[in-house]
Amino acid sequence: MIILGLDPSLSSTGWGVIRSEGSRLSHVAHGQVKTAATTPMPERLACLQAELAQVIARYRPDRAAAEEIFLNKNPQSTLKLAQARGAVLAACGAAYDGMGLTVREHAARAVKKSVVGTGAAEKRQVQAMLKVLLPGVKVVGADAADALAVAIADAHLG
Amino acid sequence: MIILGLDPSLSSTGWGVIRSEGSRLSHVAHGQVKTAATTPMPERLACLQAELAQVIARYRPDRAAAEEIFLNKNPQSTLKLAQARGAVLAACGAAYDGMGLTVREHAARAVKKSVVGTGAAEKRQVQAMLKVLLPGVKVVGADAADALAVAIADAHLG
Repeated sequence: MIILGLDPSLSSTGWGVIRSEGSRLSHVAHGQVKTAATTPMPERLACLQAELAQVIARYRPDRAAAEEIFLNKNPQSTLKLAQARGAVLAACGAAYDGMGLTVREHAARAVKKSVVGTGAAEKRQVQAMLKVLLPGVKVVGADAADALAVAIADAHLG
Repeated sequence: MIILGLDPSLSSTGWGVIRSEGSRLSHVAHGQVKTAATTPMPERLACLQAELAQVIARYRPDRAAAEEIFLNKNPQSTLKLAQARGAVLAACGAAYDGMGLTVREHAARAVKKSVVGTGAAEKRQVQAMLKVLLPGVKVVGADAADALAVAIADAHLG
């Protein structure tokens, strides 16, 4: 089973691909898609979508996972985030010639609990556990780390 | 000048195409893209995007316009709306072989003021004015009417 974890955002969308075989997990690939604040919004969204479509075509995940979206203290940044998420999810929906790639959603607390053992874990605890759960991985970028964490949680949650 | 007006939403995205020549406006086409609540979110978003990409390819607008997004009383529906908007804007950004279609954003009040003459106009006043401003038009669907209104406002705003 190949799982694609996603951490969508307009400026930097993280993605991480893992392989899950029984209880064994292994790292396949990860990365971040960055878009410039000076680029018009439609082109930024199109870029996110096109890059994610390439990731899906290359690694052919069996399913994908992302954290649930919630309204944070800054409504404007949440609206930007939600639009970025829309473009990223559209790439999943269009995958495999329109057959679509299933995207499961997990609460942020459930991801932390699954990776670290407590839903109140800090980001650096999550990142430290990635090295334990995905031996040999050297994660570049906080957004890619978050994406790998949600992929791991998705594998654990079965 | 061909202008595409957009009224994105997950369940029903309205679109309207008008031609603007000097101060003269005319109706070209309009429609609504509907997605079923039973369909998974990624597929719904991919459908919106694919349909809008077809509209753009068919009518080849010079520019597009949408109302500004704002946070309404129901955060969950706003987040859904923003994700739909992300997929629709991504279609604009990917248009013309990635050259992108410019999307201008207008405040809801500015659209009403431009079409009816007052920013506090009601929906039915806007719809009544469409018939005056686009002679012969017979609009099917409230979302398509909203899309035509934002296209007219965009033409007026130059």
